[in-house]
Amino acid sequence: MREVAVIGVGQSTFGKFPQRSVVELGREAVLAALNDASVSPKDIQVAYASRLYDVGTMAQAILKEVGISGLEMVNVENACAGGATAFRGVWKDIATGLYDIGIAIGVESMTTSPIARKLIPPAKDDLEGQLGLTMPGIFAILARRQMHEYGATLEDFAMISVKNHHHGCLNPFAQYRKEFTVEEILNSRMICDPITLLQCCPNTDGAAAAILCSMKIAKRYTTKPIKVIGSALLSGDYTYLQKDITISPLGSKTAKMAYEMAGVGPEDIDVVELHDAFANEEMLRYEELGLCKPGEGVRLVREKATWVGGKTPVNPSGGLLALGHPLSASGVRNIAEIVWHLRGQAGDRQTPNAKIGLAHMLGGAVAGLEAGACGIHILAR
Amino acid sequence: MREVAVIGVGQSTFGKFPQRSVVELGREAVLAALNDASVSPKDIQVAYASRLYDVGTMAQAILKEVGISGLEMVNVENACAGGATAFRGVWKDIATGLYDIGIAIGVESMTTSPIARKLIPPAKDDLEGQLGLTMPGIFAILARRQMHEYGATLEDFAMISVKNHHHGCLNPFAQYRKEFTVEEILNSRMICDPITLLQCCPNTDGAAAAILCSMKIAKRYTTKPIKVIGSALLSGDYTYLQKDITISPLGSKTAKMAYEMAGVGPEDIDVVELHDAFANEEMLRYEELGLCKPGEGVRLVREKATWVGGKTPVNPSGGLLALGHPLSASGVRNIAEIVWHLRGQAGDRQTPNAKIGLAHMLGGAVAGLEAGACGIHILAR
Repeated sequence: MREVAVIGVGQSTFGKFPQRSVVELGREAVLAALNDASVSPKDIQVAYASRLYDVGTMAQAILKEVGISGLEMVNVENACAGGATAFRGVWKDIATGLYDIGIAIGVESMTTSPIARKLIPPAKDDLEGQLGLTMPGIFAILARRQMHEYGATLEDFAMISVKNHHHGCLNPFAQYRKEFTVEEILNSRMICDPITLLQCCPNTDGAAAAILCSMKIAKRYTTKPIKVIGSALLSGDYTYLQKDITISPLGSKTAKMAYEMAGVGPEDIDVVELHDAFANEEMLRYEELGLCKPGEGVRLVREKATWVGGKTPVNPSGGLLALGHPLSASGVRNIAEIVWHLRGQAGDRQTPNAKIGLAHMLGGAVAGLEAGACGIHILAR
Repeated sequence: MREVAVIGVGQSTFGKFPQRSVVELGREAVLAALNDASVSPKDIQVAYASRLYDVGTMAQAILKEVGISGLEMVNVENACAGGATAFRGVWKDIATGLYDIGIAIGVESMTTSPIARKLIPPAKDDLEGQLGLTMPGIFAILARRQMHEYGATLEDFAMISVKNHHHGCLNPFAQYRKEFTVEEILNSRMICDPITLLQCCPNTDGAAAAILCSMKIAKRYTTKPIKVIGSALLSGDYTYLQKDITISPLGSKTAKMAYEMAGVGPEDIDVVELHDAFANEEMLRYEELGLCKPGEGVRLVREKATWVGGKTPVNPSGGLLALGHPLSASGVRNIAEIVWHLRGQAGDRQTPNAKIGLAHMLGGAVAGLEAGACGIHILAR
């Protein structure tokens, strides 16, 4: 396996832009990434694109007017891990020597998608689908269990949302740049008890892109190549077969694979971007990623260890809760965020002297009640 | 790059089965392939699935009840080349040494899909979309051009449909097993002048699956491994920039790459499965694949060179026209057909002593007016 570097990243501003097509959003991100990498469109040898619903031939549609043509293009879906899947596709093709340079794109317009303004339903033909469980319902069940098992309180969950909204204020790309108090979050509209509106990620339009190449040629383009030292993508492993639904074997196993490949442990990670579709979800992911022991996520929240300026900042971008969540875009966008931290370009939200960062994305009926997909990448400068 | 073998293939019967879900169709094909390969579900290390519209987490949904879990799953789309893209994904992962054994799945239910019983529209945001060109319209323009440039007649096009329906009669999996005369085909309902109903592929429900592994371990499972000697997948290259719209640079370039990798030429191919969404399309593909020189497709038709029993049988399965075309399923199904010929298991439609076969799939606005995807695999015993 060859060493692979990320040499360019880009994202559109996230928000509600019903007048902009997914193709236009994607093009903005692609042009930003090409510009960031100082790469000519002609250099690109392989492209992967992802959109959560009806990806179709999105790569072809986005790339044709940028002048990227006559190469292998693959369109992928993997629920909310689609962007991570696209990134891994490019990484695999370069690491194994098939190509030298490629682009990963994630895009979604939630205001114009066929599933716009609907609750994302669980995958069809799923057990949860038959039970009528929507995403907020699944996470509400988990929240109650976290309270019962680990002593988490409503205030603890709200504090995660306070943190990520605070981070959003530091990020010019964020959909929401507004501070909220614990009280405001708990008093916002009830969505599915105990989850209130401000503990749910919003509907978002946006796109992100990343350009990868073999380390061998990275120096042609940049003096700051960011290495991909760990990559793992897994599906399956059914939490409903477990005793404790707060422990997802899928997430833990994917993290273990990524750490082993990277030759680092959770204690070596300086900055994390993870899937916080709901505030209480972030606490579950702390544990799966090994940032703390199982059941100790509450402690991390109370110690403010995951704030910008804390021991291990988590979701300095604002995360899905405040930056916004254009589904498949998020799994490429979170890699861009980590790249900016490792390059020292993250502005007001910069993690000081960040050397290693982790980008996590989870998709499908992500509570772990059903098999979706988990994609984790570990990057290093 | 390691040598990769196809060790098991399976397909469902093709037809209209509105009472069967895509998951159920997929499962039938997967179980057939597992059985054909004598592979245990536990052995599978990577899975790719494709469906043309809203692939979602189809791999996860199909595989979970088969007991395939806890591994990398990727869901791909690439218009009608989605199945070929899934197959190539598994091939790449094994050829490059990432995994030893994996499964590719293609599936579609055209009777229950959100696009059921609608004309497949060109991709959104496309030039053709803005022009209002549907698939039959694109191919009707091409048919007129083939008549003008190369002296093809309506009878020549109809004869291709006569052939493929004849082949369909030989294939127990085919949706249509009925002989038609040239007159019957020309007198069927006009869809888009000069293309009549019986020159269009039908709406079809069905699925196919293929199991690949490294040649090193293939002998554990079978005495007749079929080698993947060529694989190519390309997108882009815009025919509307060409002088002659009957020549698709995309198809020709993909074929050239596949032949070069395989170290064989068109003259070495014993049996071909190619994308015949419309009867006149098959003639264009003869030329792109090098089965004859440009403009000489008419001659191949008149010489009956591509009939079962002819020099190089094309679409012995019945092709999309008679076997049916469940979109993303077709790019895996056509590989299954080639595998059966190379193993000598193709029954009444067997190509005698077939040593090398080619499976071609084209997607997107496939006339070449717009950039879709072309996937070609060359297999050998």
